[in-house]
Amino acid sequence: MTAAESNGNFPGKGAGAPVGVAILGKGTVGTGVLQLLSEFSYNLEQRIGGPIEVRGVAVSNVDKHKDAPEVQGLYLTGDATELIERDDVDVVVEVIGGIDYPRELVLKALRSGKSVVTANKALVAAHGSELADAANEAGVDLYYEAAVAAAIPVVGMLRRSLAGDQVQRISGIVNGTTNFILDAMATTGASYEEALAEATRLGYAEADPTADVEGHDAASKAAILASMGFHTRVTFDDVHCEGITQITADDIAAAKRANQTIKLLAICERLLDENGNTRAVNARVHPTLVPNDHPLATVDKSYNAIFVEAEAAGRLMFYGNGAGGAPTASAVLGDLVGAARNKVHGGRAPAENLYADYPVVGFEEVETRYHINMTVNDRVGVLADLARQFADSDVSLSAVRQEESGDEAHLIVVTHAAQERNLQEIVERLKGHEDVRSVNSVIRLGA
Amino acid sequence: MTAAESNGNFPGKGAGAPVGVAILGKGTVGTGVLQLLSEFSYNLEQRIGGPIEVRGVAVSNVDKHKDAPEVQGLYLTGDATELIERDDVDVVVEVIGGIDYPRELVLKALRSGKSVVTANKALVAAHGSELADAANEAGVDLYYEAAVAAAIPVVGMLRRSLAGDQVQRISGIVNGTTNFILDAMATTGASYEEALAEATRLGYAEADPTADVEGHDAASKAAILASMGFHTRVTFDDVHCEGITQITADDIAAAKRANQTIKLLAICERLLDENGNTRAVNARVHPTLVPNDHPLATVDKSYNAIFVEAEAAGRLMFYGNGAGGAPTASAVLGDLVGAARNKVHGGRAPAENLYADYPVVGFEEVETRYHINMTVNDRVGVLADLARQFADSDVSLSAVRQEESGDEAHLIVVTHAAQERNLQEIVERLKGHEDVRSVNSVIRLGA
Repeated sequence: MTAAESNGNFPGKGAGAPVGVAILGKGTVGTGVLQLLSEFSYNLEQRIGGPIEVRGVAVSNVDKHKDAPEVQGLYLTGDATELIERDDVDVVVEVIGGIDYPRELVLKALRSGKSVVTANKALVAAHGSELADAANEAGVDLYYEAAVAAAIPVVGMLRRSLAGDQVQRISGIVNGTTNFILDAMATTGASYEEALAEATRLGYAEADPTADVEGHDAASKAAILASMGFHTRVTFDDVHCEGITQITADDIAAAKRANQTIKLLAICERLLDENGNTRAVNARVHPTLVPNDHPLATVDKSYNAIFVEAEAAGRLMFYGNGAGGAPTASAVLGDLVGAARNKVHGGRAPAENLYADYPVVGFEEVETRYHINMTVNDRVGVLADLARQFADSDVSLSAVRQEESGDEAHLIVVTHAAQERNLQEIVERLKGHEDVRSVNSVIRLGA
Repeated sequence: MTAAESNGNFPGKGAGAPVGVAILGKGTVGTGVLQLLSEFSYNLEQRIGGPIEVRGVAVSNVDKHKDAPEVQGLYLTGDATELIERDDVDVVVEVIGGIDYPRELVLKALRSGKSVVTANKALVAAHGSELADAANEAGVDLYYEAAVAAAIPVVGMLRRSLAGDQVQRISGIVNGTTNFILDAMATTGASYEEALAEATRLGYAEADPTADVEGHDAASKAAILASMGFHTRVTFDDVHCEGITQITADDIAAAKRANQTIKLLAICERLLDENGNTRAVNARVHPTLVPNDHPLATVDKSYNAIFVEAEAAGRLMFYGNGAGGAPTASAVLGDLVGAARNKVHGGRAPAENLYADYPVVGFEEVETRYHINMTVNDRVGVLADLARQFADSDVSLSAVRQEESGDEAHLIVVTHAAQERNLQEIVERLKGHEDVRSVNSVIRLGA
């Protein structure tokens, strides 16, 4: 508890006082924020208790933006630092993107006593503790609802609504690009490459789709969700991350036959000891077979959804647009109303609170289930032999299905829950086995 | 803006200070609250910044409750007023139910400077303005997340997350009992009476199910949702309300054939003028045909879900348990953490804000669509004659389907959107028409 926090007193400027806002960045989200600020100015003033006054917009290239309709009548500057440090700026909105430069600006803002609203998942996932410490030291607010799933209010839900409960598990579709691709593959039978091309053509995937398709974007969000849900710092580097680039049309078709759907999930979970107490937490991102009757299976197109299991509340799901200029701007404005309201009426939003501080364990310690599809020699005894390999790795089987074709056979094996370490080991052993011609796919089960 | 609000300063007691809590009522929810307070005391203290100390539990019959495990070591009293007015009580939790008596107690608490957390939808829907005024006068918090859909955080979402957006429409399944009954009818083909009996047997319906099956419970929630979403006071009496008691197995089967599902929806919507500006708002509860590919159609059993359309955020849905002791207690505790945190660290939650103050219009002015099933004489020209009746009432038809059987025919008519007043009028005219043997069902369309 810092000095600023401990006096229990965060006085406001008083009702009717204007709230000065600096906007850093004018990409899609920044433009959306400026448009909504203009369109909703009367509503925002009523909800805040004082008017929002935009003190300026910082961009890297003033000439490029100076004719844009959203900035007419506003101070446009290339000097973000000068704007942040102005005495009449109360709240700084960071919608630049990237990590190092926005980190520097956000820290400067917090240390100057400005509250900050950011939509920057990569920044929060990489440097959340440093930012939270700076906000606590200064007794100001740090909001980042827009960093996870845009206008789906999962950050507010974890921070406030479930503050009296215990979050057990979070599993979510938190990347619209990959969900669009997987849904297109399932709907049309397209290959990964074809579906990616379609996503790019329609604007759902960026020119360089790496951050989305390799799961990095989802991993940042998993780190933020786990940190809030478990009151324990989980950073981007803690999150095991597998993307969707290896998923084939055959995998999708096989999943469909088994009444399952492949989704890229961010999964945050507690690991329990024998008494049922939390001994550690884990966060990860990987393609997952979800049963078709699970609410996450029906989340189509580029929609996002986050499924939360809490001890008392039970199962909750939140669904909506997880990206895009307008939905992200909506989340930024919701945060801005909160930060501005505190500047007017006093008080402070609940800060990040990492009191639980559980160990964060690597993926190999987590229990998962595997769905393995391989091609094997069709000879007497091969099944018995392979089954013994699983037993030797301490992995028990839930289902085995064999389909013959000529002198080879397709073998599909579904395991019971076992340590990821052992499952990875068995896959390596299968790959080296003389009767295994190829391991065609390995996908984990369970939302 | 009141005196307390205008000074922009709501100082806290300081970090580490205990927060005294009075619990009024010890039914299912009160018991759940006491259990969670005990189980989560360490977590709650960390999240609030000071410990919760339960000063007492007020019940109508002390003898009945004094041996319950949750109240051991606690002060149990029959005198709620005395408990509320104790100097060391900071927050009052009202989980009694009913209207008049809790109204009196909640007003007393607010006027004594205590923040209040209530789960009482009927109280908030009937007397919301009076309670909000008392909270504003005293500069304290009034929270009621648990009043709508238990732990589904729709109140927080409307109050905070969408504070920078404009809510266009809310449609929700907000009553678990009726959703269970309708889902059972759809799944098993049971009659309404059979499904109600099953719901009662399993504990999903109360001995007197009137408040649920007649839609009164949902209407209270619709009033609260509309008030928050549109920043306009909508009370229980403003909400047009039809229950599910007239829904037959035939209606359910017909809906299924048309790829629709019948749900009891609470619908809150804006009525726009020719320039697209809001001229009024309306809230209502009635059975509704929902297309099977709409997210609300798949909400089964006793689950609740609230679908919100906002201008910038787009379509959002929130799904979960909408009732029950533990989920409701979770919502109460989330609110309690918020209220207690403000008592420790200062500040005040956003209060109800009815600045928009739109006219609230009656159902007859709203545009709806009807699905009408009737039995008519099978004679030449009857269809043309009936179609003219619709045209005379200024109602245009979207689809007509006729099935003959002997000398009578079943006619199913689906209208385009038309004023509810005109639709009601045409139904009356059809009932009196010489060629209409019976109007078998009238169900509105559209989630």
